[in-house]
Amino acid sequence: MIKIGILGCGTIGGGVIRLLESKGVEIQQKMDNQIEIKKVLARTPDKARAIGVPEEKITQDPDDIINDPEIQIVVELIGGIDTAKDFISRAIKAGKNVVTANKDLIARHGNELYKLANEKNIDLYYEASVGGGIPIIMPMRRTLAGNSILSMIGILNGTTNYMLTRMSKEGMSYDAVLKEAQDLGFAEQDPTSDVDGLDAGRKITILAKLAFNADVSDLDVRCEGIRGVRQRDIVLAKDLGYTIKLLAVAKDKEEGIELGVYPSFIPERHPLAAVSDAYNALYVTGDAVGDVMLYGLGAGAMPTASSVVGDIMQIARHIKAESTGIGNDLRVFDKQVLPAEKTVYSYYVCMTVDDKPNVLSAIAKGFGDHNVSIQSVVQKHTTDNWAELVLITHDVEKKDIDAALKTIGELPEVGRVDNVLRVMNDL
Amino acid sequence: MIKIGILGCGTIGGGVIRLLESKGVEIQQKMDNQIEIKKVLARTPDKARAIGVPEEKITQDPDDIINDPEIQIVVELIGGIDTAKDFISRAIKAGKNVVTANKDLIARHGNELYKLANEKNIDLYYEASVGGGIPIIMPMRRTLAGNSILSMIGILNGTTNYMLTRMSKEGMSYDAVLKEAQDLGFAEQDPTSDVDGLDAGRKITILAKLAFNADVSDLDVRCEGIRGVRQRDIVLAKDLGYTIKLLAVAKDKEEGIELGVYPSFIPERHPLAAVSDAYNALYVTGDAVGDVMLYGLGAGAMPTASSVVGDIMQIARHIKAESTGIGNDLRVFDKQVLPAEKTVYSYYVCMTVDDKPNVLSAIAKGFGDHNVSIQSVVQKHTTDNWAELVLITHDVEKKDIDAALKTIGELPEVGRVDNVLRVMNDL
Repeated sequence: MIKIGILGCGTIGGGVIRLLESKGVEIQQKMDNQIEIKKVLARTPDKARAIGVPEEKITQDPDDIINDPEIQIVVELIGGIDTAKDFISRAIKAGKNVVTANKDLIARHGNELYKLANEKNIDLYYEASVGGGIPIIMPMRRTLAGNSILSMIGILNGTTNYMLTRMSKEGMSYDAVLKEAQDLGFAEQDPTSDVDGLDAGRKITILAKLAFNADVSDLDVRCEGIRGVRQRDIVLAKDLGYTIKLLAVAKDKEEGIELGVYPSFIPERHPLAAVSDAYNALYVTGDAVGDVMLYGLGAGAMPTASSVVGDIMQIARHIKAESTGIGNDLRVFDKQVLPAEKTVYSYYVCMTVDDKPNVLSAIAKGFGDHNVSIQSVVQKHTTDNWAELVLITHDVEKKDIDAALKTIGELPEVGRVDNVLRVMNDL
Repeated sequence: MIKIGILGCGTIGGGVIRLLESKGVEIQQKMDNQIEIKKVLARTPDKARAIGVPEEKITQDPDDIINDPEIQIVVELIGGIDTAKDFISRAIKAGKNVVTANKDLIARHGNELYKLANEKNIDLYYEASVGGGIPIIMPMRRTLAGNSILSMIGILNGTTNYMLTRMSKEGMSYDAVLKEAQDLGFAEQDPTSDVDGLDAGRKITILAKLAFNADVSDLDVRCEGIRGVRQRDIVLAKDLGYTIKLLAVAKDKEEGIELGVYPSFIPERHPLAAVSDAYNALYVTGDAVGDVMLYGLGAGAMPTASSVVGDIMQIARHIKAESTGIGNDLRVFDKQVLPAEKTVYSYYVCMTVDDKPNVLSAIAKGFGDHNVSIQSVVQKHTTDNWAELVLITHDVEKKDIDAALKTIGELPEVGRVDNVLRVMNDL
């Protein structure tokens, strides 16, 4: 019998409690051991009562869990950074194993907590912090352990993927689809964390720590969100054989680690292009395994609970075998994050220009003077002597594309640069 | 230091040896432990020499590995059933942990070997036996352990997926694409195991054992291959919004387990439809997690070696913590395999019929009399007073569709039934 304490009884906490209760018999058969929820920390006790937690198990004092010598696994589901960090640190110091779904905390302070966990020889598991129910952390840590991970590209935020899917399939504007997502409860009233790429940035940080053993935090990630994606960009992307997705990118390069979240063109034939609606996916490239994709629901009470319960069961096995802490990675490398200006991508540039014969040569010269070579150009005629010019560059350093766009923006023939987005060709 | 012995030095064995050698430092850093290859069983010693295995490590006597008290992990990569079973059984009885990539053996005798492994409290790992480098076994066993797995649908054979992709994209015939695959070395000179679905059947058997804890073997799987898939079927499928894939299916139903491999229509918008060329994928539905897809290269020396090395590293951790055997599932349920006639699918039927007004009603009556209701019908005119009739049924039991097709085949208006394929609509 393994006794656990659950900190937090909101949506995810409720899901975990329901799953553990409904699967009690199966779990016992699978493991030859029982998992008992001894205490649940509920800020609002009525919520715990509503899902059937018995009165004697409900507490409002975290110390009832952290200091209970019988509790061997603490499950942190309160979210946020400071309080959760305090609770988890104290639980680890008290010798308890920890399961958390807290991406904000692990992205910001993961390595500090991993170090603490190593010192105390306990398990700190966080499968649910990235990709909800999708098996990602465990496969990366275990099955792919013989690989050097070269790159990871993920669709790691369900809200923005839902929004981009609607914009693509229904021809809706960004504003209309945001309002719809908010009305349906898919997007927060303050959507910053989703639409500005911060949530995806936290998840790719956790993966970069894990895959590259790098000491990075979410503050190292360059996050560009989807606020600037126009319906017109989506239409132009389609014409060129691409889909626009919000991609979280981590690459382990000799010059440093590239960490970013960017709304990007991705070829329609790529498996990530088929990841629609609220689904998430991570596309991993390892030096031995080649390309692997892990796909599923990145949020929701029961998918997230599935990952939390998987972690609890795994730790319960380790407790029984007195082998907690065996899976912990022991090394952290001091790797640099690549400066933004040195990152290399291909770019889509849409601009409004004079509809005159000499324009293209002036623009081509502006790019060429800054080492930016052009892969393709399409000119679409619009009205009033203005034309829409759409071009895709070859791979260039960011400092070069930035300098080129500055020069070109100042040309008298160029009305305005409408949008610039990265193009992921070499996936 | 963990010493291992490798049985077999062919393509996969060579890949494993190369990967372990090239990643020695990284593995040591990750685990704070070393893995040393002590002996390699090579039927052709020159092969082992060619990849740099030192002379003193090469043996032609399996007992040099199985009976070496220093060797703690035996890696079986010789393939086939009887000899491999003998070697693995003896290794387990000698107290050694085992890693195998042998799908034929695990599909046929897995439960017997698992039982033996449980008795001796050792790890028997087989990640590479299904889906090559794709993390499948470990995520199912661990991350998704809190779920009841409801169904699994996989593209588990790279050769046939490559062939169907070429037939679909290039308009090639089955015969032409098989010859091409054979010339390129993707298909064997005797392609039976691939094109008749046997290879995919073995893999779905292993997954059904794991996910449903069922005592099944590959002999329980209904395998229908792709020999009968015509270029015309692929064209008609596209017209109707489908792609044809060879799908391995396992469902845990109240009435019994459904286990089969079928060339099937799958909606173009489904993620499995985007799995092209030699890639494999498994689409799993769990009661908590919902839908998850695991995608990657299902074969090849290095992808397969990636999974084998992941297993070796995991076992090495267990050996160090003296906790081998902790992850073994302990239960096997006595579940029935659903008889073929009781399986329920929707079907595509293509037939050549008289081009006369009364034909459709006669055919519709033939289906209706056997409880088969029609979802859609398209009639295409061809030549010489014959028309091509393409219809898709609603879900029906196999005994009903078989009876209906028998009746219809005997109608004077029906020239012939050209093809019948399952349609996977409710994914």
